[in-house]
Amino acid sequence: MTCMSAQPSVSNSITVRLELPGRATAVSELTGCVERAGGLVTALDITHSDNDRLRVDVTAAARDGDHADELVEAMRGVEGVEIHKVSDRTFLAHLGGKLKIESKVPIRNRDDLSMVYTPGVARVCLAIAENPEDARRLTIKRNTVAVVTDGTAVLGLGDIGPLAAMPVMEGKAALFKRFADIDAFPICLDTKDSDEIVRTVKAIAPVFAGINLEDISAPRCFEIERRLRDELDIPVFHDDQHGTAIVVLAALRNALRVVGKELKDVRIVQSGAGAAGTAIALLLLHAGATDVVLADINGVVRSDRSDIAGDPDSDLAKIAKHTNPRQVSGTLKDALRDADVFIGVSAPNILTGDDIATMADDAIVFALANPTPEVDPADAAKHAKVVATGRSDFANQINNVLVFPGVFRGLLDAAASKVTLDVMLAASRALSDVVKPEELNPAYIVPSVFQPDVSKVVAAAVAEAVKADQTENAHSGAAGADNAHLATDDDATAVADDQAGTRSGE
Amino acid sequence: MTCMSAQPSVSNSITVRLELPGRATAVSELTGCVERAGGLVTALDITHSDNDRLRVDVTAAARDGDHADELVEAMRGVEGVEIHKVSDRTFLAHLGGKLKIESKVPIRNRDDLSMVYTPGVARVCLAIAENPEDARRLTIKRNTVAVVTDGTAVLGLGDIGPLAAMPVMEGKAALFKRFADIDAFPICLDTKDSDEIVRTVKAIAPVFAGINLEDISAPRCFEIERRLRDELDIPVFHDDQHGTAIVVLAALRNALRVVGKELKDVRIVQSGAGAAGTAIALLLLHAGATDVVLADINGVVRSDRSDIAGDPDSDLAKIAKHTNPRQVSGTLKDALRDADVFIGVSAPNILTGDDIATMADDAIVFALANPTPEVDPADAAKHAKVVATGRSDFANQINNVLVFPGVFRGLLDAAASKVTLDVMLAASRALSDVVKPEELNPAYIVPSVFQPDVSKVVAAAVAEAVKADQTENAHSGAAGADNAHLATDDDATAVADDQAGTRSGE
Repeated sequence: MTCMSAQPSVSNSITVRLELPGRATAVSELTGCVERAGGLVTALDITHSDNDRLRVDVTAAARDGDHADELVEAMRGVEGVEIHKVSDRTFLAHLGGKLKIESKVPIRNRDDLSMVYTPGVARVCLAIAENPEDARRLTIKRNTVAVVTDGTAVLGLGDIGPLAAMPVMEGKAALFKRFADIDAFPICLDTKDSDEIVRTVKAIAPVFAGINLEDISAPRCFEIERRLRDELDIPVFHDDQHGTAIVVLAALRNALRVVGKELKDVRIVQSGAGAAGTAIALLLLHAGATDVVLADINGVVRSDRSDIAGDPDSDLAKIAKHTNPRQVSGTLKDALRDADVFIGVSAPNILTGDDIATMADDAIVFALANPTPEVDPADAAKHAKVVATGRSDFANQINNVLVFPGVFRGLLDAAASKVTLDVMLAASRALSDVVKPEELNPAYIVPSVFQPDVSKVVAAAVAEAVKADQTENAHSGAAGADNAHLATDDDATAVADDQAGTRSGE
Repeated sequence: MTCMSAQPSVSNSITVRLELPGRATAVSELTGCVERAGGLVTALDITHSDNDRLRVDVTAAARDGDHADELVEAMRGVEGVEIHKVSDRTFLAHLGGKLKIESKVPIRNRDDLSMVYTPGVARVCLAIAENPEDARRLTIKRNTVAVVTDGTAVLGLGDIGPLAAMPVMEGKAALFKRFADIDAFPICLDTKDSDEIVRTVKAIAPVFAGINLEDISAPRCFEIERRLRDELDIPVFHDDQHGTAIVVLAALRNALRVVGKELKDVRIVQSGAGAAGTAIALLLLHAGATDVVLADINGVVRSDRSDIAGDPDSDLAKIAKHTNPRQVSGTLKDALRDADVFIGVSAPNILTGDDIATMADDAIVFALANPTPEVDPADAAKHAKVVATGRSDFANQINNVLVFPGVFRGLLDAAASKVTLDVMLAASRALSDVVKPEELNPAYIVPSVFQPDVSKVVAAAVAEAVKADQTENAHSGAAGADNAHLATDDDATAVADDQAGTRSGE
């Protein structure tokens, strides 16, 4: 287990400005002492030199903040060194924030001003007042997404509040731009009240063509998402639920190809029944999985578990109704025996390699708790055929960045009003298929986030699925038929439907 | 009066793509027929030519939409012409909206990703959670302003709603960028309920370092502004009130210099007692004016006017208490006799040159109703020494663009929590003084918005005034002393204070 944070990481990187005596060995003494202290020198610039002295900027990756301090101390050991300034590269990257808003139109003179502002702008306003659909043509709406959080479940950090959540939301917006050319703006809410969150998002919705909910704690996130979905005419996507479900299903399809098993046949055990766990289960069932067992901190989810039986309208009770067909009972470890697939979206270090050894042959392990997975991936790999985590420093990183840019690109391109399970399924299939059959192997079940095709392929599949939905609804002739596909009677959609029905009464 | 829209304007500009026969006179025939139809050719590009034909893009300014159609018809009169496409330049400038959101940090590889997003971002979040003030250092907050509207009083167009208001708010944000390098984002609210507007703006406030209220109808705008000002720890500026008041006072100071009169001595008559009129009166009184008379559609504002006497807690009653020291009665025209200054922020064509002739010698006329002033500026100029309007096609354009970028730049630079009357006064003085004594003349009392110094000079004055406020408050030792300066007993601040007191009871 101790391997998890043993590697120096660029995310804990420092740049130290220092002066060294001008002796021949000075630089190698410096890099040597960083290396002996366990640091990794990633850059070294001599910025000034004279007969006696060298001025040097040295950048080194450390394991964490304390280790960074140790590296600086180690540098002080070089004879004659003088440390001027220590900068934290990650903090430097965040100085002043990570986003800027630019004008797309030049404002060089009065003529420009009279077109982009008064008096010319009035004609554009009137055109939209007359035909509100023109807002998608004549304003930023069509390419603009709100990244909305209340700061209650930020990364693994919990309820750190809206201000402290901002670096994540800005980062998310930067990723939207980088991977899908979407203009995303962080909306960090100074309230945790579900009613007020719903009211606020509805009030600011005119500017946006989509809402990306982010890092809102369960179970509030379910209600907020459902109500916004019902009341807004733009798609509402909760990345922690839907993004995670899509990427997990995509990775699982490829992992199953690697081991030669079928989704409909495998036993799947999930750890965690929160936002991500619930959404993953729903999408797996919608995609054709038949044997999904969830476990949480109280053990396997089943209808007769005392906390669940006592609250038959709860989310957990709904999940219990549609999962665990073999009526497994006991703990996560009990459920895991002979399972083909483990999907963890829960807590660090709750399983060992020995637990994985109890799974079926050619087991698949997705240990997605961040930053520390449910089971050490190296230990898991001794007993499982395919292992994936949420971390970038292991093979098979299951990362929502593979999903949300392309999904929103597709939703915006199709001027979608909803995100449906069919759209999610289409996104997931498209993402799996980015990995070509000849590329597939146990260490490569998902593409890199930097593979240039990913978001385009996902976007195209999403746009097509949206259009199919729209056509279907048009044919059904019912104005309120957006959710028609949710009313079919297979298990997965029935859960989704139940969920919607229940939560409206909350 | 008919002169007001007789000039072709680039804001009604069309670009026509057409083909002409390749005869020698073809181009001059084309431009000639545009000119004879009253259009102004502003650009002509021959994009393709062969032995027989020319392909031409011709851009022409028209008076309005109908006139643009007439110009196209006129072009059809050229023998052998073939019209391919007619584009409206203003609409072209708005296609896809006028803003984009960019990432300031490169995301080229996993290392970049690990610094600007997970896992590195977590350390930045924790730093802010520990010290919320760091949000101004490590997020976009410090340079980000919300441009907030409910779409109820957009330009002169009235209640056109949040979607139709977007082109104006985007334009405003573009101006913030162009003139003060501020990142401004449009917040167009799908509600007209004052409580909900206040709640929504408070909820989204964490991301912003300032709120610019825009085009919210009176009297709701007063209450909304006051409540937000009281409840937020960032400055709230209502441009229609405060921006207008600042630029009017700046222009008036210079106009008084031109005519050699003093603010404390002159009789000032205002037409309009809405958002702008009220704010102008308050700032004039704070700056030392002593004789200010307001009139609205019901005549001169005085305490014994029946509608005012019947509603003694109204805004108008407060205004009445602190203005009109000579107890003038009657209509606007009655009040105007022998006045030194007329300031109109009301309705088009309510006065004639003859009315202006009744004013004192060396009269000053600010006829700011847009797009059509209270009095034709050419007629007014026959009887007044200095005439100003809100239009760009006459001398002395009194334009809020001179004010809001610099004011917000200063507020952000000083990390201000409030906008006070002293800050507004400082901004106004700085703006007046941009016009050097040797530049001053009846046709030049305010600088051009494109004069590069304007926003810098205003920003510096505002930042200094904010710091003086902060120092004063620190010395007064009272935690809640932000509004201390409003509690002095001169007329202007007493009105402001009353206003605040009254509106809290609404």
